[in-house]
Amino acid sequence: MKFWARTLVGWLLAVALPTAWSAVEDGYDLWLRYRPLPPQAAAALAAQARSLVIAPGAATSPVLSAALGDLQRGIQGLTGRLPAVATVPQPGALLLVTPATAPAGLTLPWQALGGEGYLLRRVRLQGREVTVIAANADRGLLYGSFAWLRAAQTGADLARLDEFSAPRLPLRLLNHWDNLDRSVERGYAGSSIWDWWKLPDLRDARYVDYARANASLGINGTVLNNVNAKAESLTAPYLAKAAALAQVFRPYGLRVYLSARFSAPVELGGLQTADPLDPAVRAWWRAKADEIYRAIPDFGGFLVKANSEGQPGPQDYGRSHADGANMLAEVLAPHGGIVMWRAFVYAPDARDRAAQGFAEFQPLDGQFAANVIVQVKNGPIDFQPREPFHPLFGAMPRTATALEVQITKEYLGFSTHLVYLGPLFEEVLRADTHRPAPGATVARQITAMAGVANIGTDRNWCGSHFDCANWYAFGRLAWDTDLAAARVAREWVQQTFTRDRRAVDTVTALMLDSREAVVDYMTPLGLHHLMGTGHHHGPAPWVSDLERADWNPTYFHRAGPDGIGFDRSPRGSGSVAQYAPALAARWSEPATTPEALLLWFHHLPWDHRMASGRTLWQELVAHYDRGVARVEAMREQWAGLRGVVDARRHAEVTAYLAVQAREARWWRDACLAYFQAVSGLPWPAGTQPPAEALEAYRARRFKFAPGQGG
Amino acid sequence: MKFWARTLVGWLLAVALPTAWSAVEDGYDLWLRYRPLPPQAAAALAAQARSLVIAPGAATSPVLSAALGDLQRGIQGLTGRLPAVATVPQPGALLLVTPATAPAGLTLPWQALGGEGYLLRRVRLQGREVTVIAANADRGLLYGSFAWLRAAQTGADLARLDEFSAPRLPLRLLNHWDNLDRSVERGYAGSSIWDWWKLPDLRDARYVDYARANASLGINGTVLNNVNAKAESLTAPYLAKAAALAQVFRPYGLRVYLSARFSAPVELGGLQTADPLDPAVRAWWRAKADEIYRAIPDFGGFLVKANSEGQPGPQDYGRSHADGANMLAEVLAPHGGIVMWRAFVYAPDARDRAAQGFAEFQPLDGQFAANVIVQVKNGPIDFQPREPFHPLFGAMPRTATALEVQITKEYLGFSTHLVYLGPLFEEVLRADTHRPAPGATVARQITAMAGVANIGTDRNWCGSHFDCANWYAFGRLAWDTDLAAARVAREWVQQTFTRDRRAVDTVTALMLDSREAVVDYMTPLGLHHLMGTGHHHGPAPWVSDLERADWNPTYFHRAGPDGIGFDRSPRGSGSVAQYAPALAARWSEPATTPEALLLWFHHLPWDHRMASGRTLWQELVAHYDRGVARVEAMREQWAGLRGVVDARRHAEVTAYLAVQAREARWWRDACLAYFQAVSGLPWPAGTQPPAEALEAYRARRFKFAPGQGG
Repeated sequence: MKFWARTLVGWLLAVALPTAWSAVEDGYDLWLRYRPLPPQAAAALAAQARSLVIAPGAATSPVLSAALGDLQRGIQGLTGRLPAVATVPQPGALLLVTPATAPAGLTLPWQALGGEGYLLRRVRLQGREVTVIAANADRGLLYGSFAWLRAAQTGADLARLDEFSAPRLPLRLLNHWDNLDRSVERGYAGSSIWDWWKLPDLRDARYVDYARANASLGINGTVLNNVNAKAESLTAPYLAKAAALAQVFRPYGLRVYLSARFSAPVELGGLQTADPLDPAVRAWWRAKADEIYRAIPDFGGFLVKANSEGQPGPQDYGRSHADGANMLAEVLAPHGGIVMWRAFVYAPDARDRAAQGFAEFQPLDGQFAANVIVQVKNGPIDFQPREPFHPLFGAMPRTATALEVQITKEYLGFSTHLVYLGPLFEEVLRADTHRPAPGATVARQITAMAGVANIGTDRNWCGSHFDCANWYAFGRLAWDTDLAAARVAREWVQQTFTRDRRAVDTVTALMLDSREAVVDYMTPLGLHHLMGTGHHHGPAPWVSDLERADWNPTYFHRAGPDGIGFDRSPRGSGSVAQYAPALAARWSEPATTPEALLLWFHHLPWDHRMASGRTLWQELVAHYDRGVARVEAMREQWAGLRGVVDARRHAEVTAYLAVQAREARWWRDACLAYFQAVSGLPWPAGTQPPAEALEAYRARRFKFAPGQGG
Repeated sequence: MKFWARTLVGWLLAVALPTAWSAVEDGYDLWLRYRPLPPQAAAALAAQARSLVIAPGAATSPVLSAALGDLQRGIQGLTGRLPAVATVPQPGALLLVTPATAPAGLTLPWQALGGEGYLLRRVRLQGREVTVIAANADRGLLYGSFAWLRAAQTGADLARLDEFSAPRLPLRLLNHWDNLDRSVERGYAGSSIWDWWKLPDLRDARYVDYARANASLGINGTVLNNVNAKAESLTAPYLAKAAALAQVFRPYGLRVYLSARFSAPVELGGLQTADPLDPAVRAWWRAKADEIYRAIPDFGGFLVKANSEGQPGPQDYGRSHADGANMLAEVLAPHGGIVMWRAFVYAPDARDRAAQGFAEFQPLDGQFAANVIVQVKNGPIDFQPREPFHPLFGAMPRTATALEVQITKEYLGFSTHLVYLGPLFEEVLRADTHRPAPGATVARQITAMAGVANIGTDRNWCGSHFDCANWYAFGRLAWDTDLAAARVAREWVQQTFTRDRRAVDTVTALMLDSREAVVDYMTPLGLHHLMGTGHHHGPAPWVSDLERADWNPTYFHRAGPDGIGFDRSPRGSGSVAQYAPALAARWSEPATTPEALLLWFHHLPWDHRMASGRTLWQELVAHYDRGVARVEAMREQWAGLRGVVDARRHAEVTAYLAVQAREARWWRDACLAYFQAVSGLPWPAGTQPPAEALEAYRARRFKFAPGQGG
C-alpha cells in the first residue's frame, strides 16, 4: 500500500468513521433514517439506482425536485453513492415518468393511477433493465419515490418490484390542536412546532422535515390550529404566517387548512352577529375567504367545531349545523375550498351521551353543500381505548363524511405508554356498518380521514419513539384503508429500528399486543370514560360530581350493587337503534354482543356468566390482570433487545415501559378498588387486592399534567 | 494498492464521509463543537494530547470521568484520534493532577488555585514534554479540562501554554424562570427544558449536555424554577424530579437550588400562617429542609422573591425581609445551604421606583445571617438596555450580595434581536461604586453572580445562535469578572462559528457594536422603561393608564412640552443620594452626568445643549437614527460572511437581522412620533419622519407574545 493510501485510510478510519458512527439515534429522522446498509446490501441496492432519470426540464417542478431530493438523500444514505440525475436511461436507472414524459414503448395502466397513485415496476426498456416510478402527476411521483425508498429500506426485492397503489380517500389530513401561544391541547410532545411568533420571518428547518415525513405517508393536508380556535388565526398577520408554512409545504403536496372560529365576524369584523343567514356575515366571510386565497392560493379550507363544548356556532342564532356549514362552503367554493364540519357535539339532553351526535346530525343528511364534509370521530364518545364505530358512518348516504381519529393519546396514557394504534384504526376502518348491506365497512363510507396530530417540539417529534408509529400508521392507513395494521407495524420497525429479523418479529408482536393491553388495564369489556377529570390522566371511576351528568365516569359505568354497564339496548337508552337494524338486533342482546363491547351496550349483574365460565366480576378482574401482565411481557420482550436496538433509544423506551407498568397497575388497582367497594364482592381466588386503599387513589392530584393548554 | 484496501477506501469515501460531512450546524453543540481541524492543525494538536494521564484509581471519581469524557470527545473530534487513558506519562501526554497525585518533582502554586481554580502548563517531566492540568480538587480539573479544550479550539499555542485561573466569586448561578407547566416567564427559546411531567423516570439526554455547557464555563449552580414560585415544587414528587436532575448534574459540579414560595407552610403544610417568627412555621421549614437534603444531599439552597409583585413574604406578617431570610437560612445552615433573597421589591411609595429597593434593604445591612445573600439586579429598575449600577452595591458592607443580570432579553428584543450582552455585564462589573473609596467596583462588592437563563427547548438552546453568546459571556464573566467582553466574544466566535480570522474580526466587531445599537434604537441618553405593557415587546412610551403610577412609561420619561427625563437630582426625587457622595455630586448636575445616563438623572428642556452642539431633541433623533443605522451595518457585515459561515446558520441569522432591522425602525419611529407629538418640535433637518402615524403604532397589539407564561 502506498503512503498516501495508508494515510488516507488512517485518516478516514480515525476522523471520518467515528464522526459518522456517532450519529445519535435521537428519533428525529423518524422512518426516513437512510442509515448505511452493510456493503453487500448497499451494492445490490446501488445497482438498482445508478441514476435518476427525468424528462428534460422536468426538474423545474418543485414537487419533482422534492421527490428527487429524498431519492438522492435516501440512496446516498443507504448505499453511500449519490445517484446522478440524467435524462437518458442507462441500465440500473430509476425513471420518474408521467404519460407526457414516458419513453416510447412503455405501456402502463395510467388510468388506474388517478391523480395521486403510483406504479413502481421493474421493466426492460430498449434492452436495459430499469425501474420506473410512474404517475399521472408529480404528486404521484413524489409518493412513488417515497414508496420506492420504503421498499429499499424494508429490504424488498427491488429486482422483482411491481407495486401499484392509489388512495381511495382524496383527503388525508392531520388536525393540529395547536394554540397560538404554542400550547397544544392534548399534546404530550412538548409545545407546538409552529413558532407563530417568529413566523413568517423564520422558517424552522423542521417544517421541511415535517412535510417530508407527511409526504412519505401520503398525507396531503394539515389543519394548523386547534379546533377550539382563536379568531386571531384569521387576521392578516396570522394568515401571513400560515402562508409561509404553506410555501414550505407546497412541494410536498401538503395543503394548509385552518380551524375557523364561527364568531369571527363579531370578534374581528365588529359585526353584531355571526348569524350564518345574515347578509353582512356572509359578506364578511366572503371577503375573508378572498383574502385568504390571495395569501394562500391553494388553501384547503376550514375545519369547524361549532356549538360544542362552549364554541360558538349557528345554533346560537337558531340556525342548523347545515346552515352554518353551507354558508362557509359557499364562500370557499369559488376557490375550490372545503368545509370540514365536526359532528362532535353535546345535546342539551344528557340521557345518553353516545346518542347525541347522531341525533343532531343524521336528520341533516342531504342538506349539506357539496363541498362540506361532516367529520365524525371514530366512536360516539371520545377517543376511548375501545368504542364501537360511530353510528353516523353509513347513516348519512347523501353527505360526505370524514373519519376523525386521535393520533395523540389523550385517553391512552399520553406519550409514556406504548400503545400502537394501528389495530384501533384498522378495527374502525373494517367495521361493517351494514348500511345499506353487509360488507359496507366504515372505510367504504368515508371520503376523508383526519388524525389529531401527536407532533410537538420534542426532538423525537411525538414524545416517544413508539408514538411516531401512530403518526406512521395513520398516514399509511389513510392512504390505503385496506392495509393490515400488522404489516404497517412491521415496515415501520424495519425503517425505524432495525432490519434484524428476530428484532422485527419481537417488536412487531409487542406493538400488536399493546392496544389490547391498554384496553385491558384501563377499560375492558366495553367500559369507557373512567379517566381523571380535565387532564384525563389516570383512573377516576369514582367521579360523580361534575356539572353535566354526562361528564361523570359514574354516568358511563353505572356500577352499583346490582351490576355494571350502560344499558343502550331497547330496555335502556335505546340508542343501539342508531345502528343498522341487523347490528342493532345483535347488540341489543348480551348473548350476541361481543364481550369486548358488552358493558358499552348492557348493564349486567356482577354474577353474569361469561363465555369463559367466569362471572362478570371475575372476568373484569381477569382482564385488568391480563392488561398488567401484558405490559410486563412487553417489558421483557423489549429488555431482550438490548444490544440489538441502539443504546439510547433502547434505554429511553425501557424507561417509558417502566412508567407504563407502574401506571397499568395503578389503573387496575384503582378501578378494581372502586368496583369492589361498589359491588361488595370478594376478591376472586388467586388475585391480588389493590396495593393501596381506595381513598389513596382518590386523593391523587395532577395539577400540571400536560395537554391542558388552550 | 491491494483489493481490500481499494474496497475499504472506496467504501469509506462513499459511505462514511458523506455521513460525517452532513453533520448539520443547527447550534445544538454550542461552543463545544469539536469539529475536525484541517490535517496539519489536527496533527499538531494531537501531538499535544497523545494520552490522558491520571493517577491509578482516580477515574472512579464521577467529576474526573466527566472531565475525561469531554477531553476524549474534544480531542477525538478535533484531531480524529482518541487519546488513550494511561497512568504513566509519555511525551505529549496531558496529565490531570492534584497535590495528592502530582508526580514527584512537579512544583506548582497549589495554594493560589483554591478549591475550583486550575493551572494549565507545559512542563518537562523526567525528560518528557507534557502538559499538566492541575487543580486542588476534581472540580478544578473539570474546569481546567474545559479551559484546555477552549485553548485548543481557539487555536492557542499549546506548546507554550501557561494559564492560571481561579474564580473570585464562589457562586456562579443560572436562575431559570421556568414554571411547572413548562412555560417560561420571559423565555423566548421554546418551553422549559425541564420535562417535569416525565421526570424523574425520564432523563432527557439534553440534561447532560446542559450540564456540560455550564461546566465548560464554570457555572456551578442552577435554580430550577421560577422566582414566582409554585409551592408544589417543594412537594415530595417534585423533589424527586429535582433530585433526578441533581444526579445528572453532579459530575459536572452543578448544584441544584430551588425557588421557594414563602407561603408554602400554609399551602402545603396546612398552617394558618407563614409568619417567619411562628414556631410552627419554623418547624415546618426545618422538616422541609431535612426532607430536601435527604433527596438531594448537596442541595444548594433557596432563592426567594418575597413581597414583590404580589408574591407572599414576611411583610405580610409585619416582619422584615431579614426576618424572613434568616428563618430560612437557619434551617438550611446545618446542611450547608444558603438563601438568596431578592432585593427586587416595590415599595408602597411610588415617588421614585428607582429608589425603592435601596430604601427597603439598605437599612437591613448587618441583620442578615451569614448564609444569606441579598440578590440585587444590575440596575435599580429592571434589566433595561442601560441603567446605572444599583446603588445597593457597596452600600451593604456587612451583607453578602449577588449581582443578578438577565441573560434572557426580556427588554432587549427577545431572541430575534442580535444583542451581545458582554459589554452590559462588563459595564456593571466594572462600575466604580466609590464605596468605601474609588476603585471599589461592583465586581469587588459581590460574592455571587446570577444570570436569568435564556435556555429553552429550541434546538439551538437559546432561541437564536447569537443568544448563546450571552449564556457564554455570563458564565465566563462570572468565573473571571475581569475578563474583557471583547475577548469573550472573540473566543466564542472562534469556537462557535469559525477560526477564519477575517470572519472572527467581523463577527466580534458586530457583536461589540450590538449593545450600543439597542440602547440607541430603544432607550438612548438614559431613557428607560418605554416598552409595551405586559409582554414588553416593542415601544409604548404613550402608556399612562396603568394601575400603579410607576408601571407607566410616562412616569419614567416624563416627556412634556417643557422637556424630557426623570429628575433624580436633589432638585427632583433626590434618589441620586443613594450613591456614594462623590458619584451623587457628579450625577446631580447635568454637566457632569455622562450623556449615556443624562435623562435617567435629569429632566431637561428639549433645547438643552449637548456636547455635540446639538439640542437634546436633535441629539435624541440622532441617537435613534444611529441605532437603526447600526443594525443596518450589522446586516451588511453579516451578509459579507456568506460562504464563510455555514449556510444554515448564516441564513437563520440573516432572517433574524431582518426582523431586528424592521423592529429597530419601529422603535425609532414610534418613540420619535410620540416625543415629537409631545414636544411639538419640527423634525431636525435631514431626518425622516416616522413611516406611520402615531395612532398606528399605538394600535398595535401582541396578544400571543412569548414569555408571558406563569
